[in-house]
Amino acid sequence: MDVRKPMPLALLLTPTGTHTAAWRHPDAPLHDAANFEYFRKIAESAERSYYDLLFIADSLFMSHGERGGERRYPRHPHLELEPLSLLSALSVVTKNIGLAATVSTTYSFPYTLARAFASLDHLSGGRAGWNLVTSQSDLEAQNYGLDAHLLHSDRYARAAEYVDVVRRLWDSWEEDALVGDKDSGIAIDPSKLHALNHKGEYYSVKGPLNVSRPPQGRPVIIQAGSSNTGQDLAAATADIVFTAQTDKQAAQLFYRSIKDRLAANGRTPESLIVMPGVYAVVGETDAEAQEKFAQLQDLIHPEVGRELLAKLLGKEELSNIDVDKPLPMFTDVNTSKSRLEMIQAMGADGTLTVRELYQRLAPARGHLTLVGSAQHVADTLIEWRNDGAADGFMLIPGVMPQSVNDFDRLVLPILRDHGVARRAYDGTTLRERLGLPRPTNSFTSEQSPSAMV
Amino acid sequence: MDVRKPMPLALLLTPTGTHTAAWRHPDAPLHDAANFEYFRKIAESAERSYYDLLFIADSLFMSHGERGGERRYPRHPHLELEPLSLLSALSVVTKNIGLAATVSTTYSFPYTLARAFASLDHLSGGRAGWNLVTSQSDLEAQNYGLDAHLLHSDRYARAAEYVDVVRRLWDSWEEDALVGDKDSGIAIDPSKLHALNHKGEYYSVKGPLNVSRPPQGRPVIIQAGSSNTGQDLAAATADIVFTAQTDKQAAQLFYRSIKDRLAANGRTPESLIVMPGVYAVVGETDAEAQEKFAQLQDLIHPEVGRELLAKLLGKEELSNIDVDKPLPMFTDVNTSKSRLEMIQAMGADGTLTVRELYQRLAPARGHLTLVGSAQHVADTLIEWRNDGAADGFMLIPGVMPQSVNDFDRLVLPILRDHGVARRAYDGTTLRERLGLPRPTNSFTSEQSPSAMV
Repeated sequence: MDVRKPMPLALLLTPTGTHTAAWRHPDAPLHDAANFEYFRKIAESAERSYYDLLFIADSLFMSHGERGGERRYPRHPHLELEPLSLLSALSVVTKNIGLAATVSTTYSFPYTLARAFASLDHLSGGRAGWNLVTSQSDLEAQNYGLDAHLLHSDRYARAAEYVDVVRRLWDSWEEDALVGDKDSGIAIDPSKLHALNHKGEYYSVKGPLNVSRPPQGRPVIIQAGSSNTGQDLAAATADIVFTAQTDKQAAQLFYRSIKDRLAANGRTPESLIVMPGVYAVVGETDAEAQEKFAQLQDLIHPEVGRELLAKLLGKEELSNIDVDKPLPMFTDVNTSKSRLEMIQAMGADGTLTVRELYQRLAPARGHLTLVGSAQHVADTLIEWRNDGAADGFMLIPGVMPQSVNDFDRLVLPILRDHGVARRAYDGTTLRERLGLPRPTNSFTSEQSPSAMV
Repeated sequence: MDVRKPMPLALLLTPTGTHTAAWRHPDAPLHDAANFEYFRKIAESAERSYYDLLFIADSLFMSHGERGGERRYPRHPHLELEPLSLLSALSVVTKNIGLAATVSTTYSFPYTLARAFASLDHLSGGRAGWNLVTSQSDLEAQNYGLDAHLLHSDRYARAAEYVDVVRRLWDSWEEDALVGDKDSGIAIDPSKLHALNHKGEYYSVKGPLNVSRPPQGRPVIIQAGSSNTGQDLAAATADIVFTAQTDKQAAQLFYRSIKDRLAANGRTPESLIVMPGVYAVVGETDAEAQEKFAQLQDLIHPEVGRELLAKLLGKEELSNIDVDKPLPMFTDVNTSKSRLEMIQAMGADGTLTVRELYQRLAPARGHLTLVGSAQHVADTLIEWRNDGAADGFMLIPGVMPQSVNDFDRLVLPILRDHGVARRAYDGTTLRERLGLPRPTNSFTSEQSPSAMV
């Protein structure tokens, strides 16, 4: 890997930041989760800083306060605006930055999804990306006609067939299928328009798509599954893998594990980009960063902190415990052995108070957390990159707009001085900027039986 | 009805126009069906002319040339860009015009649809409209896992339940559900956030929606079903009805039929707007209009014309017939009695040649067709409006940009002189501009058992 090449940087787009208490920060905007102008400013700023990608995480439910603490959660970190609608709107006010969003394969139709991302790719001139997830929550299932969520294995078997169908729908028009010869009256070349006639185990889709081939050939595909099945699917179909890592050695193992699966799919290591998330709290000095971090941590309401622990322990509620004493030694928890051991190792063995414990669990949600000077943050990112733990990073802003502004103002200049952050955009599509190969059209590369000759 | 009030006007948004041969017109743009800048210009122009609504028709398939004549059809009149993506992007470059699109209840999830239109309503500041259709084609079914299309009665039973769920999802946040009190840490008021817990015959949806209540309360709902079932559903749930009418008396009957159903739903006649489509070919003189009309008619390729007749007659093909002689008297047609009688009444009884016949069938697709001077077109629209055949109209442009430019330049000034076309936008939302009532929140109006007290 050329360690002087700019490292791809994605920015997670959230209304107020990912920290549980972000919305309580004095600078955090209120009620802007549905306000386009707010997101326009973030997107324009991200483009001025040369991020490669804006990314929107998504889920398909809204909790409505059954638990007492939920009234203290805002809608954040998720948006109110449906991600593809917001990205379509943002495509008009940006020119270069990639636009990616999560859509679940479990609760959507492949024809609809292929069409929506092909449209976004056309609207944005080749900047669309799809983060494939299979969803996780029973609350999502219950909004889509099911009582409970599908089993992990079912979801991944469906997802594998789904993504295959979507890729072939994107291929179903060859580049020059549209003829448009006014004189002869020939509009299309039927030999370059392909039906899939797909009849699989889970999906039956005739095709062709009713959108011409996207400018990128296929929009960029992102995945974040870390299970063995998830890594296999990513190695077969993903262009980018997002991952949550806190430890460099574990990140190196993951990086190696996923890259090692590429060869069996006929792919080079460079054809898949690994981007751990990084939760960075940056100050002019380490002390200033620690102070910023503590300010947010102190805003976690004890009711929210208790509920976070209750959820992890599988208990209905913990509203009676004193947050300034150690967590009682429960015998009636309902959680997995590995999770209980994780919580105990973090200090639930009596060494931390309940408040200290939930403050440790609350902010970063399993992502690399860096609290310190810009030099410390930049050095760590470069080290992870040079040591084969990451190709690039997704910035996870704790609180908006502070976290992004600090990173842009303080960290990016250092990365640029080292030649590892962009000073300009090159290429015309997201794929080109990321150095990803243009996908070969599966209908052109083989003699397809469905082509009209 | 106040006959001096501006009549609502919608514009059907198509890349090259709805006439089968529009794309062959010398001025028609080529390959712009996926080009945002093209649609931006149309939308900006429509806003300068004070249209109330841009409307995108949609279907979920692409024919790929199995029939010989299909290679002579372009993708038009349908777009390549997915309608909600395009409207989200257009929301950024417009300020006042309504933005409506077709989405089928048969091939979508109510949670997804409610969310998408709520998002568009937020993005546009209250200008979203949903045209509810149940789809018609086996080709659509085959892209969505079914072999054949659902029966009409099944589709409408599903649609009725679907629209009920969607409306309650839009209601699931009361206006002031979001509290956002940073000091106390209270983010939401759970008593103002409502689960539906809907378990119906076709859908099971828990709710609440993960988008706050749309600026219009509920986006405008449009329908076009003309069957008895379709009219009943519209009278119960629609704000606008689009309709295809060629004859004033028939239009008056339809108008009366649908308005008469409103009282049983506790609605006033003004709460539902009836808008027939109008295919207008306008000239400075009648002769100039006739010439424009003939220019397009002559561009219908005989292969396309024959195929149009073949489809109507349910025959595989008619490629051997001479287009300059009358249609042979077939005995082996496979079509309905009413359709055969309609074709015979149009001249298939030997009085017209095949060419004359398909030219009569091709352009307007069952909509009011006006070919003549601006005065003739304006007089007819005013007459239909004054005589209770229409509240407003949807302009169906035969060829872009000519048809719209002619209508705007020649017909709108006459309508304005009569005080029946807008000279400015009033109100802030589409509903307000159309004089439609703001929907009462179904959860606020009753004591809901699902509210947390």
